Order: sequence, then C-alpha cells, then structure tokens
Amino acid sequence: MDVDAIGYVAAALTTLSFFPQAIKTLRTDDTHSISLSMYSLFTSGVAIWAAFGLLSGNGPVILANGFTLIPASFVLQKKIRHRLKAGER
Amino acid sequence: MDVDAIGYVAAALTTLSFFPQAIKTLRTDDTHSISLSMYSLFTSGVAIWAAFGLLSGNGPVILANGFTLIPASFVLQKKIRHRLKAGER
Repeated sequence: MDVDAIGYVAAALTTLSFFPQAIKTLRTDDTHSISLSMYSLFTSGVAIWAAFGLLSGNGPVILANGFTLIPASFVLQKKIRHRLKAGER
Repeated sequence: MDVDAIGYVAAALTTLSFFPQAIKTLRTDDTHSISLSMYSLFTSGVAIWAAFGLLSGNGPVILANGFTLIPASFVLQKKIRHRLKAGER
C-alpha cells in the first residue's frame, strides 16, 4: 500500500473532524464543556499553518488549514460569546 | 523571518491545544457539549498520522501526533463513557 495514501486518509480525518463539532454547537448553542484555551490555541495554530502554507507556497497546507479554520473559528466565537454573556468557564 | 519558524509555531499551537481541553474534561467530568463524531474522527486521524510518521520515518510527525493522541483519546473515552451511561448526545 502507498504510504502517502495513509497520510491523505489521516489528513482528511483530522481536517473534517471539526465540522461535526461546529454542527453540534450550531444546533445546541451549547459550549459549556468546551475549553476556551483549546479553541484559542487551535484556531490561532490553524491560522498560522495557513499563513505558513501561503508563505511557502504549499497548496495542501493552505487547503487543509483554510478548510479547518471555518468550523474552528465558528466554535471559538460561540464560546467567547457565551463566556462574555454568562461568565461561562 | 525564517518561514520554517512559522511552521514550528503553528505545529506547537495545534499540538498543545488539546491539553487544556483534556484538563477541563478531567476537572469537570463534563463532555455534554463535546461532539463524539469530532473526537472519533480526530483521534483516528491522529493515530493514522502517527502510523504514517512511523512508516515514512518522519520524526516530527510521530512526535507531534503521538503527543496529541494522549489528550484526544482521553477526551474520547470520557465522551464514550458518558454516552453509554447517560445516553448523552
């Protein structure tokens, strides 16, 4: 089996995984058990990955991280709103 | 500025980000707003990334993903236990 194919499967899984969380958060409007630190670090990291992809001209890195940035930043802004509104931890 | 340095900062942020979530989940024992699909896909993806790193002899890929696997699988098993016990969504 092609080793690169394993890398592509892994990339697809980790990239797509944030969409079900964003959908759940959209549906329930609940971020109580979600860590603000996690989404702050992760969303910043993904944005910097995308910048790294742009600066180094790496298409797959731009694509995967640009894509993940959508659900990650959605969950982050929801968590920030809830924290500001309800003093949620 | 060295473009690679930007990649290392991004890698550090996305790798470390799952630890605050695991610590929050450990402290509160609450996974109510966490998506089971997200942690199933993400943890599988990270495990496959680590396997890809082993098969291709890529040290940083093994290290980053082996490290992320710890908090991700911790949150996943908590979510599965809660789902089984309480029929939590």
